[in-house]
Amino acid sequence: QQQHRRGRAKTDCRISSLNAREPTYKFNSEAGTTEFWDRNSEEFECSGVAAVRNDIQPNGLLLPHYNNAPQLLYIVQGSGILGIVIPGCAETFESPQREKSMRGEQSRSEGGSQYRTGGDCHQKVRQFRQGDVLALPAGITLWFYNNGQERLVTVALLDVSNPANQLDLQFRHFFLAGNPNPKGLSGSRYEEETRSRKEHEQGKQPQQQQSGSLFDGFDLDILADVFNVDRNLAKNLQGREDQRGQIIRAENFDVLSPKFEEEEQSHRPGKGSQPNGLEETICAMRLRENLDHPSRADVYNPRGGRVSTLNSHKLPILNWLQLSAEKGVLYQNAVMAPYWNLNAHSIIYIIRGTGRIQVVGDTGNSVFDDEVREGQMIVVPQNFAIMKKAGDQGLEYIAFKTNDQAMTSPLAGRLSAIRAMPEEVLMNSYQISRQEARSLKYNREETCVFAGRKSTGYST
Amino acid sequence: QQQHRRGRAKTDCRISSLNAREPTYKFNSEAGTTEFWDRNSEEFECSGVAAVRNDIQPNGLLLPHYNNAPQLLYIVQGSGILGIVIPGCAETFESPQREKSMRGEQSRSEGGSQYRTGGDCHQKVRQFRQGDVLALPAGITLWFYNNGQERLVTVALLDVSNPANQLDLQFRHFFLAGNPNPKGLSGSRYEEETRSRKEHEQGKQPQQQQSGSLFDGFDLDILADVFNVDRNLAKNLQGREDQRGQIIRAENFDVLSPKFEEEEQSHRPGKGSQPNGLEETICAMRLRENLDHPSRADVYNPRGGRVSTLNSHKLPILNWLQLSAEKGVLYQNAVMAPYWNLNAHSIIYIIRGTGRIQVVGDTGNSVFDDEVREGQMIVVPQNFAIMKKAGDQGLEYIAFKTNDQAMTSPLAGRLSAIRAMPEEVLMNSYQISRQEARSLKYNREETCVFAGRKSTGYST
Amino acid sequence: QQQHRRGRAKTDCRISSLNAREPTYKFNSEAGTTEFWDRNSEEFECSGVAAVRNDIQPNGLLLPHYNNAPQLLYIVQGSGILGIVIPGCAETFESPQREKSMRGEQSRSEGGSQYRTGGDCHQKVRQFRQGDVLALPAGITLWFYNNGQERLVTVALLDVSNPANQLDLQFRHFFLAGNPNPKGLSGSRYEEETRSRKEHEQGKQPQQQQSGSLFDGFDLDILADVFNVDRNLAKNLQGREDQRGQIIRAENFDVLSPKFEEEEQSHRPGKGSQPNGLEETICAMRLRENLDHPSRADVYNPRGGRVSTLNSHKLPILNWLQLSAEKGVLYQNAVMAPYWNLNAHSIIYIIRGTGRIQVVGDTGNSVFDDEVREGQMIVVPQNFAIMKKAGDQGLEYIAFKTNDQAMTSPLAGRLSAIRAMPEEVLMNSYQISRQEARSLKYNREETCVFAGRKSTGYST
Repeated sequence: QQQHRRGRAKTDCRISSLNAREPTYKFNSEAGTTEFWDRNSEEFECSGVAAVRNDIQPNGLLLPHYNNAPQLLYIVQGSGILGIVIPGCAETFESPQREKSMRGEQSRSEGGSQYRTGGDCHQKVRQFRQGDVLALPAGITLWFYNNGQERLVTVALLDVSNPANQLDLQFRHFFLAGNPNPKGLSGSRYEEETRSRKEHEQGKQPQQQQSGSLFDGFDLDILADVFNVDRNLAKNLQGREDQRGQIIRAENFDVLSPKFEEEEQSHRPGKGSQPNGLEETICAMRLRENLDHPSRADVYNPRGGRVSTLNSHKLPILNWLQLSAEKGVLYQNAVMAPYWNLNAHSIIYIIRGTGRIQVVGDTGNSVFDDEVREGQMIVVPQNFAIMKKAGDQGLEYIAFKTNDQAMTSPLAGRLSAIRAMPEEVLMNSYQISRQEARSLKYNREETCVFAGRKSTGYST
Repeated sequence: QQQHRRGRAKTDCRISSLNAREPTYKFNSEAGTTEFWDRNSEEFECSGVAAVRNDIQPNGLLLPHYNNAPQLLYIVQGSGILGIVIPGCAETFESPQREKSMRGEQSRSEGGSQYRTGGDCHQKVRQFRQGDVLALPAGITLWFYNNGQERLVTVALLDVSNPANQLDLQFRHFFLAGNPNPKGLSGSRYEEETRSRKEHEQGKQPQQQQSGSLFDGFDLDILADVFNVDRNLAKNLQGREDQRGQIIRAENFDVLSPKFEEEEQSHRPGKGSQPNGLEETICAMRLRENLDHPSRADVYNPRGGRVSTLNSHKLPILNWLQLSAEKGVLYQNAVMAPYWNLNAHSIIYIIRGTGRIQVVGDTGNSVFDDEVREGQMIVVPQNFAIMKKAGDQGLEYIAFKTNDQAMTSPLAGRLSAIRAMPEEVLMNSYQISRQEARSLKYNREETCVFAGRKSTGYST
Repeated sequence: QQQHRRGRAKTDCRISSLNAREPTYKFNSEAGTTEFWDRNSEEFECSGVAAVRNDIQPNGLLLPHYNNAPQLLYIVQGSGILGIVIPGCAETFESPQREKSMRGEQSRSEGGSQYRTGGDCHQKVRQFRQGDVLALPAGITLWFYNNGQERLVTVALLDVSNPANQLDLQFRHFFLAGNPNPKGLSGSRYEEETRSRKEHEQGKQPQQQQSGSLFDGFDLDILADVFNVDRNLAKNLQGREDQRGQIIRAENFDVLSPKFEEEEQSHRPGKGSQPNGLEETICAMRLRENLDHPSRADVYNPRGGRVSTLNSHKLPILNWLQLSAEKGVLYQNAVMAPYWNLNAHSIIYIIRGTGRIQVVGDTGNSVFDDEVREGQMIVVPQNFAIMKKAGDQGLEYIAFKTNDQAMTSPLAGRLSAIRAMPEEVLMNSYQISRQEARSLKYNREETCVFAGRKSTGYST
């Protein structure tokens, strides 16, 4: 029930108009692309969030990295596996014994290495698929691999003003491998931005600088020492010559991962690992929930559509992240009743279809009234009122919210503020008769998703 | 015990002098006036709060609205009823069957309305009276009605830097009805400010713009559709022609409300509504406590006065709001021992009488030393030391504090820091004898409210 | 598990290079010196902390004061007693009856004083010694006395961006006695800074102003009244003529304090005082833990060194302060594996010895790579990677962290992120063979403190 402070980029936000935007920066890698929304727009700055979309080809691996902000990540399309490395958690996944031929290979390490000749051991990996929401803490090492047959598309909200981030409101990612933003592979503005920031920070020759992995910044001899390997292998850690970008092609990637059904079953408490402090809280924590299936809906109107919400009651790690999500599917011309977000900003990404959205601010001013379409994102500030109407192909969206128990207050429908007030208040406030007040209260019996009408006088 | 972050308007507050201020902006409505303290003064900005005073005539209705900040509201004078609309809570109040004549009335709504012909149903309303503190969350729809015989005067602290507000540090209110700040009704600076902000935001023609309700910003046809009513009724929702302001005259306002004594009894746990998650936490939560009666005092000196505190131990919703309050009544010339607020800012409103207040900052500098009188407000920053002395008519105040467990540390009296230290520390620190150290520790046996002496050499 | 917001001085921190610094300002008092690190450096500002070092001579008393920020204080050298005055806690320490001669002394107080003729009563005092960490809340009155034979040296982190501080991000201390920063005693820049701020605030004649105690700011007659003493004694409270500074010489300071062993035993729950709300939470709370003894280590490598951590699991008051600490002792040429702080800034003070530290930022850029030595402090921002290597005399440090459950993620060694990832991820990420991947994972079996090698090719 207690609410937590979020960082505030600005003490005075003059939000006069919002925008439904495509990503601003695009960055190409060997096996996919990464796109960022402009973090300097007023609404992103004022709500203290950043957003990223990744498009990963089959067999593409998004290199191990961690972020300075927790994220909610929605799987728009495809499937894959997620590796998440939590310090202190055990390597509980074991691969079967490798083939003999491998043993003949020579290690380049100088000292006698003590590695096992048996199978591989690593921390838990997790399978995910279209429609999943993944809840990912800040500072934790992550990698993603597309083990499916089609492109894997993810869109993520990064909450840079979250209490988990104690530094500034810039989004920062730290790569453990590769050379995430090499020159020449891309002419993206993001690359320019990163490079110029780095140059500015170092006040040095602008042309040589590139963005490297963490290991790039350490002394080569120290690296060789701390890993107890030779300098050549340490050079590979630094990866200065790597030109593949953030998303690389990784063939023969037979990482052990439970089949989907098995993993689902492992959600029962007490299964999997013996309980100690860390494992109870984090190591075995559920990070994933699917919002795609109609049976998962929390609000359902067979003529209008459905809404599925995901908050910390359903996925406890969200209490730690202080984020939640809502997925909506509106059928042809259906209307989502106007409402406001009581205790959260809402960042809406259009998954499929088109529609019309209206947003109204505190002086009754319209700050957004436009068509939206697949691939766009719009930030709706806390307390602003919003209405959505699907177009002829329907409208599907995911809304990320900056509160683990986000609440909305509808203005119309069965749960509306209008219905909850005495008739006398409505009659006097709107200068209407008692009968009219009753019309306002009871003419819409639907909850918040209203069936569409082609015959309305306004276009969608 | 854990403390929560508050937003910070400034990272460097040069608080050289405080002010005891009357409200700066005044706004006249049909049935009352609304006054705001200047939010741009250093001390309001640095403590991240805003303050509002409403004066509502008998039968006056403050229109339904919600704020972007939680508030503590003190009833300075009069009585009334509060409507608070919490999404998800049931309409648990039922009015008796209305008179038959009403049924003949025709609805303007187009479709066949499904409203009942019986009585009205609405959410809980609450009676309040002079001396009450009301604790009101952010984002929740509120309306106030003066059902008494005299003027209803309320003064409220709005905690815009509370974690509940995720946007900026501007105070924003959102009206669900009316035309809260129409042109022509008032020449107030607040109106000017709001209008110019709106104009600035829209970058449009300055002369036409007014401040409307939320419905004003939505498309008329969409409104008619979502409420399933005709366009004329939807126009009333928008209320563009309404010239009555925020506080309107509402006659024949026979809203059901429990008698006072009955409501008091319903505070027993388990009474009233069946327990589900939401109702337990919010719907049935107590929002009100009276601090007026002497028997309620927490500190009492029959020769000096009394202090009544209200924190989250006594009113649990304050834990959510992270605010608390203290009411003080000092008799003629009585002195409140100097103290500092350990973990909160203190915003003091003078309810009645006059007195002298001294405030001292971290370098021993006097930042306030002046007379105060009824109707003034003074912001005392955290850790600054303050002393109050009542004038010849006594002094009555309400202090709002930005912590649900606000603590003070007195410098004199039975609970003072001086008394808690060893004599050796005092002797060496102040270069005094052991006897003198004992004088400092024990010459005042009273707790923190000291009886007044006419004979002191300083004027009040 | 939930994290709390910290204040943010800046929304954009361009941390291009860190510094290992000595204190910037020095202030001399009668019986010691006080030194401050520059609060305006980018890294101190961005992490929202301040730091102070006190050097107190034997029989020196740091005058009673409180701060606007909670602090962790490490005892670098010496021993002493700490007085901490918590409002509402009882005076539970009683001194034995004083000698008769004292009774003949005359009090200067005007009224008949009611003090006892028996022994002194005061709140609990606490003995501390080298290697202790003291956890001290904001707003609570503190004094320190050096009752040992050698100099008492303390270094403290003040967390000004802690939720406990609701005002700005300036460090403020409030003295209850003395004239903490008198003119003439010191030519320190800190004094200049304080005086110029005070002058600026008051907009008055610059030359007369000094920094006084809180009592200095109150009216003399009011002080005499509230303490019920004569004006002369009240003048001593104000201490305007006091030229001794913050740390004064206090002879014959026979304040009662439990012997060390007895105090240690009183940590058992339920001992000491009867339980009421306040005493349970604060009055009897443990504030101290010693990190010096090798048996206290949490990580130990007999050939490399040891690390002792102190978090809120071990010292519950840290949950309130949201701070923790880590003490490290690295033997000759030993290496602390590179790691990053997941959820905290780390402020490292070098207690003894020398070493080399490397810090790497989010673009793989080296932001620090230099020798460090005794008496220096370096701020390592959250998520930045750091490596430490001891010099020939070894390296001893205390790291203060801005999270009560600070977590690190090592890049090498038995708990490293590298080891937790599948071989396939390493092979593809670093473009290496399976054997090489196994070298990276398993060639270092030590946890995080690695034995030193003289033969490495890089200098320390």
